[in-house]
Amino acid sequence: MLPCHESVYANPSAIHRAGQDAKKLLEAARRRVADCVGAMPSEIFFTSGGTESDNWAIMSAAAAVETGLSGGGRGRHMVTSSFEHNAVLKPMETLASRGWECTLVSPGKDGIVDPEEVASAVRPDTVLVSVMAVNNVAGTVQPVKEMAAAAHAKGAIFHTDAVQAAGHIPVDARGWNVDLMSISAHKFHGPKGTGVLFAKIPRLPIPLIDGGGQERGGRSGTENVPGAVGMAEALAESVERLDEDSVALSALRDRLIERVLRIEGAVLVGHPTKRLPGNACFAFRGLDGLANIVAGLDEAGIEASSGSACSASSKEADHVLVAMGHLDIGLRHSLRISLSRWNTPSDIERIADRLDELIPILKIHRSRH
Amino acid sequence: MLPCHESVYANPSAIHRAGQDAKKLLEAARRRVADCVGAMPSEIFFTSGGTESDNWAIMSAAAAVETGLSGGGRGRHMVTSSFEHNAVLKPMETLASRGWECTLVSPGKDGIVDPEEVASAVRPDTVLVSVMAVNNVAGTVQPVKEMAAAAHAKGAIFHTDAVQAAGHIPVDARGWNVDLMSISAHKFHGPKGTGVLFAKIPRLPIPLIDGGGQERGGRSGTENVPGAVGMAEALAESVERLDEDSVALSALRDRLIERVLRIEGAVLVGHPTKRLPGNACFAFRGLDGLANIVAGLDEAGIEASSGSACSASSKEADHVLVAMGHLDIGLRHSLRISLSRWNTPSDIERIADRLDELIPILKIHRSRH
Repeated sequence: MLPCHESVYANPSAIHRAGQDAKKLLEAARRRVADCVGAMPSEIFFTSGGTESDNWAIMSAAAAVETGLSGGGRGRHMVTSSFEHNAVLKPMETLASRGWECTLVSPGKDGIVDPEEVASAVRPDTVLVSVMAVNNVAGTVQPVKEMAAAAHAKGAIFHTDAVQAAGHIPVDARGWNVDLMSISAHKFHGPKGTGVLFAKIPRLPIPLIDGGGQERGGRSGTENVPGAVGMAEALAESVERLDEDSVALSALRDRLIERVLRIEGAVLVGHPTKRLPGNACFAFRGLDGLANIVAGLDEAGIEASSGSACSASSKEADHVLVAMGHLDIGLRHSLRISLSRWNTPSDIERIADRLDELIPILKIHRSRH
Repeated sequence: MLPCHESVYANPSAIHRAGQDAKKLLEAARRRVADCVGAMPSEIFFTSGGTESDNWAIMSAAAAVETGLSGGGRGRHMVTSSFEHNAVLKPMETLASRGWECTLVSPGKDGIVDPEEVASAVRPDTVLVSVMAVNNVAGTVQPVKEMAAAAHAKGAIFHTDAVQAAGHIPVDARGWNVDLMSISAHKFHGPKGTGVLFAKIPRLPIPLIDGGGQERGGRSGTENVPGAVGMAEALAESVERLDEDSVALSALRDRLIERVLRIEGAVLVGHPTKRLPGNACFAFRGLDGLANIVAGLDEAGIEASSGSACSASSKEADHVLVAMGHLDIGLRHSLRISLSRWNTPSDIERIADRLDELIPILKIHRSRH
């Protein structure tokens, strides 16, 4: 990224050579990203991140109907899952306020959406089905290909929020046969403020951000060349190491799960194996508002999350746990521990040891109040 | 920016200390930016750039009407100028396709919009007036304060695209009394992919990009901490040097204008003094499609633009020149030379010498075809 900030800093739309040098870097980044996710370069649109990509995908599908561009008897109905990220749920709420209907499909208690439930929810007037590739809290891997097929069987298009998937599991837009797909760079050690919307040609998405006509008219604004270059580099590195890292991370994850489940009241959130190699997510019977666990781990130099970071300070029950039916058994909040290639077996023991100490203390503290 | 990429890379919404460290940098950047543009930190919303900010400002004002949030008999009418950047004109076109009316006010031949013309265009049902602070091609400085007053006098809110102004002339949201204002970092040597929407409290803009609720619910998506920090640093440096740089740049600009106007057929685009200290913009009678001038300068290591970079490859007449009435005298394209604090008097002579050589050659070439 540094050369893009220092020497190749021109506007890639400028016609002088400095601009064209920047353009070359941008297009090379586009090809690298495309190669990593089973796409063609012409299907990759650079955005400011996963949230913009999700908003764009949904609002573009809606705009196609509202402006009469999308024909074939499609109406104002979308399908999504009840444990999507708010970057999908909030635009759906906005559409609902404009008279759209949105059907929410619930995942099972294992945190996995059943493609047959998706199929049942799709109606003749459904425009778009949007279900994430990997849940951002439970880490569970969804049957994207089967859900896309279910949407297509009834003439709807399919979007997947693959923000938690890219760089962590194989992502294959072509093989999955998705129409739209969102990616965020900082989820695979890339820079913040950059992401991608994959859009299958010729389904050029209607702009959410319009103006100078960059990104083939799809997404205006001077292109963030350093961001795109950094994202491509980080994604290529993650994908290259994917097989090797997955084996190592799954072993660390499974050891962590085994250790933590020995703690009284500990529950694993999500399917034990159909989950990200680096995701371990727990709830604890008798404990909610897990900020104190996060703080206790933090004191020991362990950075964990309760719920999604985006809603970390919320007192409400985590909507992902609610969607998975955990509220019924009194579990309102989760502790998510994300492992990366830089974690070691001794990290795992340290995390588990710390939780061994913390949980009983917090429970005693809780019972006194 | 480097520490944000390397050590303080946590998500600023995370509750652990690493997240809070990132949050502190983000909020310090917000205070610095606010100080530089006459705003309060709570009025600064970080975005992915000027184009997003412009789209957000306009679409948010429209959404307030369409969802019934904005009362007081306001209707579906906006006012803008005919030489705005496409980041303003395109969203207006989208609104027009949804049944909105947009009145375009033309600038004078000097590239300056008359506040009285703005006042005449505002109707009882006008929601928003949007006129840029500085034109992106002609470099002309607009009477923002007077135009904002004209909008307010009839109950409309006022937005200014200050993308070309921030860091180049004094920008004072409070003094100008604007309601919404767009800024882009890479226009003052900051990083690409980051910008600001200033929004006067309590007029919290309705989100264009919704989700996790970052930026006080206004703009979702994990915050681009390195981008915000880089923008604040670049803006603070530009503002600190503004007086000194303006004097030096204006002298260079005026020398360049004086030299170039000696070339036969050369015309200055825009007011001779009410323009950015670093902007010199020309048209040449008998020459259009100025890509060949840009290429000829480029060969000599001089990077210039014809029209805006965003539409540099377009064959159509530059809409800014059309708006300014230059088409009537056969001038379709402009050559824009932007000077910065790193330019020297010898650069100016070199640019002028090169144009002295190029223009007659290109004219002969043109007359033979």
